[in-house]
Amino acid sequence: MTKKSRFLQTPIEPFVVEAGLTADQILVRMERISFQGRNLATAHRIWQKMLQDDVTIFLGMAGALSAGGLRLIVAHLILNRYVDCLVSTGANLYHDLHETRGQRHYVGSAQADDAALAEDRIDRVYDTYASEEEFITNDNWIASFASMLETRPYTSREFLHLLGRHLWETTSRDGILTAAYRANVPIFCPAIADSSIGMGLSQARQKTPGAGYIDIIGDIVESANLIIRRPRTASVVLGGGTPKNFINQASVQAEFYSDDVGGHRYALQIVTDVPHFGGASGSSLEEAQSWGKLATDSARVSVQADATIALPLLASALATTAAPLLAARQRPVFAVGSRVMTIDGHTVSSERFEDTDEPAV
Amino acid sequence: MTKKSRFLQTPIEPFVVEAGLTADQILVRMERISFQGRNLATAHRIWQKMLQDDVTIFLGMAGALSAGGLRLIVAHLILNRYVDCLVSTGANLYHDLHETRGQRHYVGSAQADDAALAEDRIDRVYDTYASEEEFITNDNWIASFASMLETRPYTSREFLHLLGRHLWETTSRDGILTAAYRANVPIFCPAIADSSIGMGLSQARQKTPGAGYIDIIGDIVESANLIIRRPRTASVVLGGGTPKNFINQASVQAEFYSDDVGGHRYALQIVTDVPHFGGASGSSLEEAQSWGKLATDSARVSVQADATIALPLLASALATTAAPLLAARQRPVFAVGSRVMTIDGHTVSSERFEDTDEPAV
Amino acid sequence: MTKKSRFLQTPIEPFVVEAGLTADQILVRMERISFQGRNLATAHRIWQKMLQDDVTIFLGMAGALSAGGLRLIVAHLILNRYVDCLVSTGANLYHDLHETRGQRHYVGSAQADDAALAEDRIDRVYDTYASEEEFITNDNWIASFASMLETRPYTSREFLHLLGRHLWETTSRDGILTAAYRANVPIFCPAIADSSIGMGLSQARQKTPGAGYIDIIGDIVESANLIIRRPRTASVVLGGGTPKNFINQASVQAEFYSDDVGGHRYALQIVTDVPHFGGASGSSLEEAQSWGKLATDSARVSVQADATIALPLLASALATTAAPLLAARQRPVFAVGSRVMTIDGHTVSSERFEDTDEPAV
Amino acid sequence: MTKKSRFLQTPIEPFVVEAGLTADQILVRMERISFQGRNLATAHRIWQKMLQDDVTIFLGMAGALSAGGLRLIVAHLILNRYVDCLVSTGANLYHDLHETRGQRHYVGSAQADDAALAEDRIDRVYDTYASEEEFITNDNWIASFASMLETRPYTSREFLHLLGRHLWETTSRDGILTAAYRANVPIFCPAIADSSIGMGLSQARQKTPGAGYIDIIGDIVESANLIIRRPRTASVVLGGGTPKNFINQASVQAEFYSDDVGGHRYALQIVTDVPHFGGASGSSLEEAQSWGKLATDSARVSVQADATIALPLLASALATTAAPLLAARQRPVFAVGSRVMTIDGHTVSSERFEDTDEPAV
Repeated sequence: MTKKSRFLQTPIEPFVVEAGLTADQILVRMERISFQGRNLATAHRIWQKMLQDDVTIFLGMAGALSAGGLRLIVAHLILNRYVDCLVSTGANLYHDLHETRGQRHYVGSAQADDAALAEDRIDRVYDTYASEEEFITNDNWIASFASMLETRPYTSREFLHLLGRHLWETTSRDGILTAAYRANVPIFCPAIADSSIGMGLSQARQKTPGAGYIDIIGDIVESANLIIRRPRTASVVLGGGTPKNFINQASVQAEFYSDDVGGHRYALQIVTDVPHFGGASGSSLEEAQSWGKLATDSARVSVQADATIALPLLASALATTAAPLLAARQRPVFAVGSRVMTIDGHTVSSERFEDTDEPAV
Repeated sequence: MTKKSRFLQTPIEPFVVEAGLTADQILVRMERISFQGRNLATAHRIWQKMLQDDVTIFLGMAGALSAGGLRLIVAHLILNRYVDCLVSTGANLYHDLHETRGQRHYVGSAQADDAALAEDRIDRVYDTYASEEEFITNDNWIASFASMLETRPYTSREFLHLLGRHLWETTSRDGILTAAYRANVPIFCPAIADSSIGMGLSQARQKTPGAGYIDIIGDIVESANLIIRRPRTASVVLGGGTPKNFINQASVQAEFYSDDVGGHRYALQIVTDVPHFGGASGSSLEEAQSWGKLATDSARVSVQADATIALPLLASALATTAAPLLAARQRPVFAVGSRVMTIDGHTVSSERFEDTDEPAV
Repeated sequence: MTKKSRFLQTPIEPFVVEAGLTADQILVRMERISFQGRNLATAHRIWQKMLQDDVTIFLGMAGALSAGGLRLIVAHLILNRYVDCLVSTGANLYHDLHETRGQRHYVGSAQADDAALAEDRIDRVYDTYASEEEFITNDNWIASFASMLETRPYTSREFLHLLGRHLWETTSRDGILTAAYRANVPIFCPAIADSSIGMGLSQARQKTPGAGYIDIIGDIVESANLIIRRPRTASVVLGGGTPKNFINQASVQAEFYSDDVGGHRYALQIVTDVPHFGGASGSSLEEAQSWGKLATDSARVSVQADATIALPLLASALATTAAPLLAARQRPVFAVGSRVMTIDGHTVSSERFEDTDEPAV
Repeated sequence: MTKKSRFLQTPIEPFVVEAGLTADQILVRMERISFQGRNLATAHRIWQKMLQDDVTIFLGMAGALSAGGLRLIVAHLILNRYVDCLVSTGANLYHDLHETRGQRHYVGSAQADDAALAEDRIDRVYDTYASEEEFITNDNWIASFASMLETRPYTSREFLHLLGRHLWETTSRDGILTAAYRANVPIFCPAIADSSIGMGLSQARQKTPGAGYIDIIGDIVESANLIIRRPRTASVVLGGGTPKNFINQASVQAEFYSDDVGGHRYALQIVTDVPHFGGASGSSLEEAQSWGKLATDSARVSVQADATIALPLLASALATTAAPLLAARQRPVFAVGSRVMTIDGHTVSSERFEDTDEPAV
């Protein structure tokens, strides 16, 4: 046999089955297999690296993850500061609120008779059901809460913090919104108008003229300022959608105002969309480099998988492997409770981009 | 041979190739084949039915359709009133504005060297390129325009109409925004904060404190009021995303305030996402019935295809088959140019849901 | 504006809708858009180039294309020699035979009640139905035919030619098998055992001991010899599966015995599978280069689309644009009717690979 | 709140993260979440049920699972008799043989320079590499082995058993082929001609005229007879392709000859293809009922996931949960080593379907 090609360096190690393997042991054995299994194992490694580096970690979530049973994983990631800032669709926050308020989603069937469901006023999300009546009580609850706030514009970040606080004070239950409130982790929801939280806000306006004003352009300014203040960032994306783009946009916007910003240093995404139809949800992390959304030397991996399989395995593994890293981690400290938030003591305006002459953190 | 089963009614007719077939002839021959080909042919039929019925037709667009060369098809659909109201992602409107302002997207390669592109400041969308410098001139252009508007909240609908007018007045070029301006067709952009239009608005605020205020909750109220005023609706969705959900949400929200609303009477979607991961983009039209987003007896079809293949064929066919229907069509008449829009002479508030005691149109 | 980047050469030309556009006009307008629309337009160009070059064109077909209404398109491609050799799954040939024998597939629903269908003995292929009883008559018909052949091994190529002849002689109807018989185009079916044709052959053996003997290893030898004899090749693949790999394998195998073989010069595939799970059906044409399946300077394009949309449009366009090319085309001449086939007068053994000392054509 | 709908029975239980969770604990927690996570947990349950019932369990495997690092999982499933009969593509057996012979696949990159790989004669499978030179040594090894066998037809089942024996005798290494040899588990490879094993067989014929005859129609007869002899069956499918259909076809074929056969009692598939393009790989298990491939009351689940993620987790969980079931399991006993195999002492002809008057096992 002639000398090996430079391309043949690291052999595939077939996965060996054993009883009693833990999540982290499984992912370690998956590092040397192929395809999406390897990618998921790489995601595990990259997240560990993020936690060891001095970066602000953004988590984006889209898709019906809360209704689908992953909300307490996300709450766990927030409470234990695997992540520093959440960007979410409104639906995920709404379905989280639904359960935090003591209501449930239900195991259903993807082969349902939708006319029969409609008659019973049951809303279906693929194989999962919920009661429309209960949803309406949420809408009212949100509307009542929002209609009693001072009538002025709120960034989605400020509003969601107040909502999380109210939820925690009235329920004391775990969930995404309450975890973010308790951990002082900001949540942005750029497409809040496209969700039942938005519907609740519109009903608040019905109750109280002038209520329900969300300043989503302020969210753009604020999220960019977060990065101007602390230019080293990482991105973890579940499912694409508006959160994926918003996290990238914050970096691109920040770069206009600060030379210290150079794209995310780490990026991992767990998506089911594909790149070849041109949509942002499925776009590759390589493409993101062309935009400067990612540093060209970033550590990155894209996992093509349903988050309901990938995330339970990944989060369970990190619960073991990341514990010492979380303890040692230098994480940004936020004050999220008022109109102007702060990061590490610096104000983060939603009114204007920070002057880059001020020292970045 | 025994008697035929009741399931065996309509034989598949194999497609017969012929030189010189036009788009509509091709789609007619596809009506009796199978799979997504049949679905696309059915979409052609359903759109014709919509145009013959007295319904308000919503068009949702997500994915990089404007950058990808479909913006003049959408402009054509608007100008000729195949549709009555557009709900779009911000990116599609931004890329439309980019070309209407005389700049271009470029044929590129999906196997690009993204580091080299980044060095040249070329942004890649799968196999399509654009100049970041040119994008920055757009951002500035939008910022300048928005910073000169009276500083008050604007629904995305009002702002986009003003933007389309300004674009038309300065360029006189065809495009989505200019077509909607000229045809008095409202555009909603619920996730405008997640786009470069949002970035331009945030920069407007940098120039003029208090500028760049978009009232996306007002968009919820307004879009629901459109349906309360005119309860019979149809939905055409390209690519899922926030537009798909926003169109459905408007119907659900309207139903809270008016018994005349009963879900879309017609629905067609051209999507590449799949239902089985639970996301809204790929969700089936059957599932939409359970929510009341669709009437249970609605005519509907879902086409699993890239819009860059399906839409040129479908729109070319309709240009022939829909011409007489468009001429005869009873379409809603909008006045979109001011803070409060009207439909068929009735005001459509963005401040509160219409009282259902007023007669619906 | 500074000087343009080398990456920005060819602007995207938005598709302009017009009434009365023919298939070829539509595809020409799609050449300068993006994503899969552009790829389909490129496929149109590449097929035209194949027809102008002196190459043997292989067509691979997998997926339920015959049942789904595309069998007369494939017959048209064979009869008019857009292609020179077909590699197919057994199911496509079986469903073709089903209709050529005068039976039908039926328009059905993807939301069928499968238990009710089972009760009526209706077999479902997504949204298409067929009668199991009729299928059984086919099996018997194939078994009867095969049981009367001389009991010796047949390559799938020889057997399918005899089957096509018998079908033509008894029905005089158009179809894939009869077109291939009439046009002297060889058909290979490497996975014939995994189909109802295989089931019919197994039942022939029940009738006549020793019948139903298919020499699929002979097919490997024969297909490689075709390429050794005529080393310049092109590959058109619909749907991946065993045909895609078999066409590539023939080239790789031929290369072992002849230095003139260097991978396909042209390759186009219309597939719905994706590369990132590692399967051969979705594998990229770039990957195929690493194996030598494709010449590294080959013209190639992969279209991610359902063939039931892409093929009617593509074949209709070619019916116009390829007509003069087909008339001028230098195509290989086969004699397929006996145990040893010939190409351009040279024998093509199924027993041993051709000696490369003999001059290639 | 009014009384609950009958549709709202079992609440979703959000997954709770904990350090040290084992694979089986993770899957138990995934039983009450949604989407593909729930489906994978259901697959775990169904496989356990199969093992407790008196059924013959078929395993189908397609896609590059062996090259991708899953071959020792499949070997484990065979050796421990989680399954009773393997149906595989040729490539999976070939890549297994490659490693069992002491050679390796290598960790590579999906963004490779394929021209550079081609120059080094490295074959790429998405993100995995192998040496073409080493592949050629395999081909020769297979050719040498096959050319020394008695020149007569062999079912793929008989040939693969002999190949596995030869491999075990010369290497004593674990792998799929050697595990099946040692465990007396039959392997069918209906598309063997579409693989490098087929290429090796074709080269055997070059060495020894008359060698390399595989009787794949005999495989049809034999596989159906297996089911006629033991009519209760289950199907586990990884990746679709010819194995999926062949397993179903065996059941349908057996049903022609025995009324005791009624479709698989259990079915689980882990696939990445989707139903809506009509292909067999992605076809739903509901559709399979219409054909009688599945009993209408079968327990079944389809998991949309890459096997490189799903199978390590599933097999690791079963290593714990299935251990007692495997110990108690009543499994069929095969003698596979000669031309005519036996199951539980009964002969299984490859020449003619069993007479149903003989008592089934």
